[in-house]
Amino acid sequence: MIIRHFTDVDAEQIADGLQKRVVIGEKEGAPNFIMRVFDVAPGFSSPFHDHFWEHEIFVVSGEAYIRNGKDEEIPIHAGDTIFVPPYEKHCMVNKSADVFRFVCLIPVGAE
Amino acid sequence: MIIRHFTDVDAEQIADGLQKRVVIGEKEGAPNFIMRVFDVAPGFSSPFHDHFWEHEIFVVSGEAYIRNGKDEEIPIHAGDTIFVPPYEKHCMVNKSADVFRFVCLIPVGAE
Repeated sequence: MIIRHFTDVDAEQIADGLQKRVVIGEKEGAPNFIMRVFDVAPGFSSPFHDHFWEHEIFVVSGEAYIRNGKDEEIPIHAGDTIFVPPYEKHCMVNKSADVFRFVCLIPVGAE
Repeated sequence: MIIRHFTDVDAEQIADGLQKRVVIGEKEGAPNFIMRVFDVAPGFSSPFHDHFWEHEIFVVSGEAYIRNGKDEEIPIHAGDTIFVPPYEKHCMVNKSADVFRFVCLIPVGAE
């Protein structure tokens, strides 16, 4: 088995104010799905987009809004779980003063 | 999308000192993998076992040991990520005074 703290994995800066860590990926031998940890800096958002694959999300810390396919912003915080089905638009909007951190899983082959 | 706090999902008592919540499962439309949240009470363990499917784990809170396929106990705590490959024996051992909580994902069809 592979055990490591998520901060031991290098973070990639994938957009302004948005960091991604692939903590369990194909490199680690994941056969079916991939675990990533995202940090959204205060005042930043992830891109509002959709795609053919789903997300399964667990909020680790902080507070933010998730924008859904109807353009509604719903407040979310630590301990919330979110299923984003395929083809529903979504993004995370961090209007707080702290980093917003979440675990987000996708199927292998999605990206 | 489906948004809910993990505590809004009913916990199943699956063994002494061991609770499981299926927070994103087939009932919610998960096409490829299933997210569960487990609580191990102080002094309890999950069963030491293996199976054909993998686990991808994110530790939410608390401290415990994970026993691996070589019968070693490795300390783990909040923020640790663990990939348990198919057929490696494993269990969580909570020797602390607090609940040990982790998110654990499996592929659809595993159980």
